[in-house]
Amino acid sequence: MIMRDVAIVGVGMSKFGERWSSGLKDLMAEAGIAALEDANISSHEIEMLYGSTMASGRFVGQEHTAALMADQLGFHNIPAVRLENACASGGSALRQGYIAVASGIHDIVVVGGVEKMTDVTSGEASTALGGAGDQEWELFQGITFPGLYALMAKRHMYEYGTTEEQMASVSVKNHDNASKNQYAQFRRAITIDDVMRSKMVSDPLKLLDCSPISDGAAVAVLVPLEKAKKYNDTPIKIVASAQASDTLRLAERDSLTEIKATKIAAQNAYKQAKLEAKDIDVVEVHDCFSIAEILAMEDLGFYKKGKAAKAIADGETTLNSKLSVNTSGGLKGCGHPVGATGIKQAAEIVWQLRGDAKERQVKNAEVGMTHNVGGSGATAVVHIYKRAD
Amino acid sequence: MIMRDVAIVGVGMSKFGERWSSGLKDLMAEAGIAALEDANISSHEIEMLYGSTMASGRFVGQEHTAALMADQLGFHNIPAVRLENACASGGSALRQGYIAVASGIHDIVVVGGVEKMTDVTSGEASTALGGAGDQEWELFQGITFPGLYALMAKRHMYEYGTTEEQMASVSVKNHDNASKNQYAQFRRAITIDDVMRSKMVSDPLKLLDCSPISDGAAVAVLVPLEKAKKYNDTPIKIVASAQASDTLRLAERDSLTEIKATKIAAQNAYKQAKLEAKDIDVVEVHDCFSIAEILAMEDLGFYKKGKAAKAIADGETTLNSKLSVNTSGGLKGCGHPVGATGIKQAAEIVWQLRGDAKERQVKNAEVGMTHNVGGSGATAVVHIYKRAD
Repeated sequence: MIMRDVAIVGVGMSKFGERWSSGLKDLMAEAGIAALEDANISSHEIEMLYGSTMASGRFVGQEHTAALMADQLGFHNIPAVRLENACASGGSALRQGYIAVASGIHDIVVVGGVEKMTDVTSGEASTALGGAGDQEWELFQGITFPGLYALMAKRHMYEYGTTEEQMASVSVKNHDNASKNQYAQFRRAITIDDVMRSKMVSDPLKLLDCSPISDGAAVAVLVPLEKAKKYNDTPIKIVASAQASDTLRLAERDSLTEIKATKIAAQNAYKQAKLEAKDIDVVEVHDCFSIAEILAMEDLGFYKKGKAAKAIADGETTLNSKLSVNTSGGLKGCGHPVGATGIKQAAEIVWQLRGDAKERQVKNAEVGMTHNVGGSGATAVVHIYKRAD
Repeated sequence: MIMRDVAIVGVGMSKFGERWSSGLKDLMAEAGIAALEDANISSHEIEMLYGSTMASGRFVGQEHTAALMADQLGFHNIPAVRLENACASGGSALRQGYIAVASGIHDIVVVGGVEKMTDVTSGEASTALGGAGDQEWELFQGITFPGLYALMAKRHMYEYGTTEEQMASVSVKNHDNASKNQYAQFRRAITIDDVMRSKMVSDPLKLLDCSPISDGAAVAVLVPLEKAKKYNDTPIKIVASAQASDTLRLAERDSLTEIKATKIAAQNAYKQAKLEAKDIDVVEVHDCFSIAEILAMEDLGFYKKGKAAKAIADGETTLNSKLSVNTSGGLKGCGHPVGATGIKQAAEIVWQLRGDAKERQVKNAEVGMTHNVGGSGATAVVHIYKRAD
């Protein structure tokens, strides 16, 4: 297997949030044009598009969204494929784009994610998102997605003494980071007390433990590393791309307190990159719920099982502490338009490694990671990035 | 770009039809187990899964269907990605599977498509399928999918004198082929008169000009050609894989009487295979409506524009005539569970090239083709196949 190195030479995002006056196509254009401009590339140079949306059929009646994005961005007649892996759709698209360039099939590939979630009621949105789990054996029986993560949280509390205040500290940190991000849905700090007093969603998860319903898009341009300087002075190299799956059904997993797909994907990514957890300077992890960030910090190898919650509460993962986690604000603070999230994570790491993250810049960031989860853990995608120069 | 040859060593299908007592997972298992048995391979050898479903979220509330299929078929913890390109989802999955093996990223890849459409009303199914077109600018304005193809049919009739009886002959031929296919939804012959007297759906398209709502699944196993004989005595080589896109909006196309994406994909496929249209012995084309098969025969280069309808009516494309077209029964006769169709087409060509197509066997079939279209032509995927020995 002969593989080429792959670099990201352009990224773009729409503002995340409740974008009442913007449709699916507007969001695609906003992020897409920004990414093409960032890569200093014209639309007719693009050879392939991997698009990601999760449930656009249920949110806005639109399937076939990759061909739509290719059309909207002026990529005339190129192959375009939509990928859907629930909330890991974006990470999955990034990985397929990486494979297409690494293998030499294509030179210039765009990966673009979008979701327009606010055109339906929050009840309808929850039902649509429930499609990420096993419809017949979980959702149809009455459990909601917050309910699945609440089960994991309860078990983590039981086994490791994790507290609700510790979980709340994840949201406090992520809102703090989001307050420094112009693209974020929630640009305001919150306190532990705010989280603890927010409405109960599914015991022990409260409203402010949960990522929001959001509209938004994110786009990245991938090229072979050897050609990257033509497009951007600070290309960011993808040094690992790994993905794993697991049963959709929480009840059939080996453990309620770990995401096995994350562990497998992380192990494969570290191996490919020849790096260890301690080498990572900045990471975007999948904090769909506060407990999910705690699981991620453990399953990615940053902390031993049962040790992450206290470390986060102690401030070890705030901006420019021991390890800067979710500097974008994460899913909780930046917003979670599901199909866009995995690519937004990559955009944030690109900005961090370029030194372009402004107020939220991690000092001397050299190695970054993204971690994107689908459903309650049936899919996990991990990428590792380095400055190319 | 160094590429390996890729072969299909196993295919399997569920019975297509109104499968009231079978859910999404049952259909996956029925086709998947058949494909694994055909390839004489065990589930733990599979390295990657590309799954295709179009609108499972709207049909059965289930997204994240590739991870679900990986779980259902016992492919523990491998990367699994769902692809969605409307009715071309299956062809798109096959192409990504081809790329994964050809590039050397993976050795053993499964591509599997499924759709469970009959759990909703036909009105709800039509609305879901409408997501293949431009929701804001076409469907929301009131046009249906049959309506879009009816516009193409009307223009083809106006420009080339194509008649309703000629269109009807497509359905008659495809039902005749379906009557010989154990997996087909409609195993009965029909007459021109039956089609002409069937209920008008969208003038000039009548009920029997339209492919049905179906449940079904189809699965294929792909490996490098050099390893193929380990799994199957008659591996079928994929000699070309090409895909193209176009605007989703019919009104913005250059022409109403051709599918530009088909033309581009076909040109690229012929070039890759170093073959011409006259070299093809058996082809599965995308006959979602009878007019679509006429367009396909022209856009794939088998007939000059405006000449296919008469040729089909004259019997030039019946079984073992000049060119055997849609020996499976096509979408019309075999059924059209949208996510499965592109992979079912490949299964039919594999059986034909192996000489295993029984009653519907094309004599001396050496070169086969599949043609899968998404929406009203915004995606087209073309593959060409040969016996490997």
